[in-house]
Amino acid sequence: MQKNINFFFNPQSIALIGASPTPGKLSNVLLQSLKKRFKGNIYPVNPKYKSIDNLKCYAAANEIKEKIDIAVLIVPSNLVLQTLNDTANAGAKGAVVISAGFKETGNSGASQEEEIKKLVNKTGMRVIGPNCMGLYDSFSGVDTFFISEDRLQRPEKGGLSIISQSGSFAVSIMDTLAMEGIGIARVVNYGNRVDVGENDLLDFFAGDENTKIVALYIEAVEDGKRFIETAKKCSSKKPVIAIKVGKFDAGAKAAKSHTGAIAGRYEIYKAAFKKAGIIEVSGYNGLLDACRVFSMQEKANGKKVFILTDGGGVGVSLTDSCIEMGLDAAPLPEEAKTELSKKLPAFCSIANPLDLTGSVTDNEYKIALEQGLKHYDIAIVAALWGPPGLTDNLVSYIKDVSEKLKKPVIICSPGGRFTQDKKRLFESKGLPVFLTPEDAVKAAVLLTDKM
Amino acid sequence: MQKNINFFFNPQSIALIGASPTPGKLSNVLLQSLKKRFKGNIYPVNPKYKSIDNLKCYAAANEIKEKIDIAVLIVPSNLVLQTLNDTANAGAKGAVVISAGFKETGNSGASQEEEIKKLVNKTGMRVIGPNCMGLYDSFSGVDTFFISEDRLQRPEKGGLSIISQSGSFAVSIMDTLAMEGIGIARVVNYGNRVDVGENDLLDFFAGDENTKIVALYIEAVEDGKRFIETAKKCSSKKPVIAIKVGKFDAGAKAAKSHTGAIAGRYEIYKAAFKKAGIIEVSGYNGLLDACRVFSMQEKANGKKVFILTDGGGVGVSLTDSCIEMGLDAAPLPEEAKTELSKKLPAFCSIANPLDLTGSVTDNEYKIALEQGLKHYDIAIVAALWGPPGLTDNLVSYIKDVSEKLKKPVIICSPGGRFTQDKKRLFESKGLPVFLTPEDAVKAAVLLTDKM
Repeated sequence: MQKNINFFFNPQSIALIGASPTPGKLSNVLLQSLKKRFKGNIYPVNPKYKSIDNLKCYAAANEIKEKIDIAVLIVPSNLVLQTLNDTANAGAKGAVVISAGFKETGNSGASQEEEIKKLVNKTGMRVIGPNCMGLYDSFSGVDTFFISEDRLQRPEKGGLSIISQSGSFAVSIMDTLAMEGIGIARVVNYGNRVDVGENDLLDFFAGDENTKIVALYIEAVEDGKRFIETAKKCSSKKPVIAIKVGKFDAGAKAAKSHTGAIAGRYEIYKAAFKKAGIIEVSGYNGLLDACRVFSMQEKANGKKVFILTDGGGVGVSLTDSCIEMGLDAAPLPEEAKTELSKKLPAFCSIANPLDLTGSVTDNEYKIALEQGLKHYDIAIVAALWGPPGLTDNLVSYIKDVSEKLKKPVIICSPGGRFTQDKKRLFESKGLPVFLTPEDAVKAAVLLTDKM
Repeated sequence: MQKNINFFFNPQSIALIGASPTPGKLSNVLLQSLKKRFKGNIYPVNPKYKSIDNLKCYAAANEIKEKIDIAVLIVPSNLVLQTLNDTANAGAKGAVVISAGFKETGNSGASQEEEIKKLVNKTGMRVIGPNCMGLYDSFSGVDTFFISEDRLQRPEKGGLSIISQSGSFAVSIMDTLAMEGIGIARVVNYGNRVDVGENDLLDFFAGDENTKIVALYIEAVEDGKRFIETAKKCSSKKPVIAIKVGKFDAGAKAAKSHTGAIAGRYEIYKAAFKKAGIIEVSGYNGLLDACRVFSMQEKANGKKVFILTDGGGVGVSLTDSCIEMGLDAAPLPEEAKTELSKKLPAFCSIANPLDLTGSVTDNEYKIALEQGLKHYDIAIVAALWGPPGLTDNLVSYIKDVSEKLKKPVIICSPGGRFTQDKKRLFESKGLPVFLTPEDAVKAAVLLTDKM
């Protein structure tokens, strides 16, 4: 068997088995995506056609005389086994089986899946799937997600890699991150996991230079012991974030009919995550926010948080949330108070939270952050854009202070259209923006938690 | 004293004291807003000018010979008392004091505020403020929020009224709702609350036909007994939602320096909210989501929830969240299973959650929702827009079933640009959309909780 799965992430050639020239058909959408992004050779395979979209089309995999790194199968489920066999005989190192109709449909599907397992063991060809979206890789250009770009925007290159048992989850989070301008390295959805699963992937991502952060969506792991080992190896090198889905019996039952995985007891997962150095987050939003904050900021050295605001109410909410979530909103030291009293207008409330009020200017934010953050590990800066004294300079001022002091800064900026524009500006400079005080504090907690 | 405060919400005339012709000055921004929206008479007052923006300008309030319903003061704090006195003498029924520099700045400000209180008691003129944004009223056109429209979008007419001690909170939520297309009736930010506060406002909103839902942001109430009475009166007629901010000592301290209010112990508030029939929500996001769901949907008759999805992972997450939050994701009755097995493709997972899979069409959603929702009180429909079989028809199909069965439906639709477009379409039909499973379930909980 191929010992590693690296070739899935840097193939020179891809055979697309079940290729179709019909616009809108899933396999045609997939072909278009590959043509757009993948720079290596693409070999469509379908006995019905001589050529598809100006590419020579082969009747079967073994007619391709060139080397095949990976094959992508999008054929009816009853043809999968024979086709996989042909593909292995043609020398492919690995296959991505998109086709559904296996374990998730019941017993006969499950026994078909057993046959695929045998084939993997016999031939050594590695298999991702079946019943999956497969791979999206911004570096290699491999893209087997068979959804058109108008419905699923593809993210730019970035440091985040996602391992997801659920295809819908992988699609939603990719699409959301793309809209937000957050880059991705690789996304793998392995569906029924007949062979390649979270363990092989964690092992690969641990050593992958393009992957700086790993996010996991887990219904059920396959091999708990190996999971803890590989996750630990990975988390010792880069942040590994996870959500566990299918926590309860009813949810677990739904998970079973979904990818055939039996979701195990939640408490066991919780303990395993901890042991493996995984940062467990709660729900879709939790994972999304964790991806955003780790994509942009480094960890803090401690839990002392400085809160800076131009709106009293948001300052109070941030303080409440910090206390609820265990951050230390320690009082501003006298030294800093004295210093800032000289430099800021009299109507400012010089404390922690420090309220610059609606009469604020960009420069006052800079002064306050510079003097305040010195005494803390991290700052949460509430930026309400109502005050006319605030301009785009605010963004670079905050960035400069964060860089100079080498301390992370999180932005809390609730509001509508104007605020959303400024959010993009902040995030283009690597300052993550959260719409609500609670979400901003949750993000700060992620950066201050010791692993 | 004016027994009621109705005149603040349907004035015929407004005197703007401290009016300025200088573009960008807060009082000029305020004047422009009034000119744009308010259909009654506007009387600028400032001894320095004869006219401002083609309106006659008066040297003092008592020079206005016409009836003044309300005066808006935006003058330096040391002039407020004298100006208020003049205004009362000129016959104004009420005043909105925008000016800051009172209790929130310390002792001397507090004693000035006491003088205003005396004036209120002596003259009977009602006062909103000081240190506030005042009123935004989509029905009367009164708009004293002194932030330009490019930074603070004004919401359309709608049934939601907001009472907020915090100006920044009021501004942020208004701006966010405006962007989302959710209408507002009235917003009142009363700042230091020298006179008019949450109790008068709850009393007014209880009887206000334009107000269908009331949202409260509370740092500290003034008169607990009256608060429970008026809130109870209001909540017996329409949903009253609240968040309590300044829950802990540090937060409470920040609240004090903000509006001079001492935020009381959280547990007492929790009990009072319950007694008053108030729906307590958590944090900014909680309030925002509650505003959205109550603006669009009626309450459900019970806690039985039907979950419909085209993506397995999201179905599992929704089920998890329903269980965690106490909803009853009861199994699909055999009768419905039999019926649906005949009508839906074999690859669908016919259960609760019901997974239509990525091969779904609009019509299958309709069939499944019609047959399923009959047996439940509410549905959460996950709409993942990847499948090419889904079109805009899905939106009206779901709306039709919800109307026909007279049962609320919540949409869960995670995703990027395409999904965001469809969110607007759903919401234009009154179907609230949430990006995450957790938020969708929280919204369903609000509709199923008995008061």
